[in-house]
Amino acid sequence: MDELPGSLGTTASLSLRLGQTIFSSASLLFMSLGVEFYSYTAFCYLVTVMGLVIPWSFTLAMVDGYSLCVGCPLRQPGILWIIIMGDWVLSILALAAACSTAGVIDLLLQNAGPYCPPKFCSRYQFSAAMAFLSWILTAASSLFNLWLLPSL
Amino acid sequence: MDELPGSLGTTASLSLRLGQTIFSSASLLFMSLGVEFYSYTAFCYLVTVMGLVIPWSFTLAMVDGYSLCVGCPLRQPGILWIIIMGDWVLSILALAAACSTAGVIDLLLQNAGPYCPPKFCSRYQFSAAMAFLSWILTAASSLFNLWLLPSL
Repeated sequence: MDELPGSLGTTASLSLRLGQTIFSSASLLFMSLGVEFYSYTAFCYLVTVMGLVIPWSFTLAMVDGYSLCVGCPLRQPGILWIIIMGDWVLSILALAAACSTAGVIDLLLQNAGPYCPPKFCSRYQFSAAMAFLSWILTAASSLFNLWLLPSL
Repeated sequence: MDELPGSLGTTASLSLRLGQTIFSSASLLFMSLGVEFYSYTAFCYLVTVMGLVIPWSFTLAMVDGYSLCVGCPLRQPGILWIIIMGDWVLSILALAAACSTAGVIDLLLQNAGPYCPPKFCSRYQFSAAMAFLSWILTAASSLFNLWLLPSL
């Protein structure tokens, strides 16, 4: 079986997983260190979703790291299906969270003034941007693993 | 080749396409008949995306209808790839539009009062719901066609 870069148990997959963990942690921190995130539903949703993405990506990063060390990638169709479905669902949730956050930030910036002091608003924007990056990497992982599936 | 329900040139695919056209038209109408949509970026984005989904789905509905009448489905891998990619991109755009609209509506409802008279706000909500339904059907079309691809 030829190695497909980005699929489970490769160096590229490990990088993708680490990227997901870093970006979603950054998104969570930028949002939750801002003081008033719980007063907006979209921001609470973003925090919840990022709280799901972080353990998922971190666990799979450890699985990838272990596979690389042992030199024997874990490739059973059943497990791969679960990973693909998990990535797919989380990528949809992350995209939804990032977009609703971006929509709300845009509205806050328009109405400006008391609702969105510049210090908080730029932090919210960073958080949304990190969530978008996390979405792109999660979707990439899902697609690479889906590509690998027929060859198993 | 066995008929996969929902893939290009089947009755189920025709129903999916018609559903997409109807829901996205409804979303567009609910939003653009409300008077103030152009003052919110998320609503403008929703109108733009729905304006892309309607011609795409309507064209493919006609292709499906033609295939059913002639009895010879149009199944070349190249064309199928284009349709899958188009569906996939449009479903991502539709999800993004629906989520950002939903986020903005939620914020408008919280701040209530002058920003969101009940008559407009329920119309916006209907529009976001229709956009979500349109996203689900577009994603379904994309997945069914992707499933068909390896058998060609």
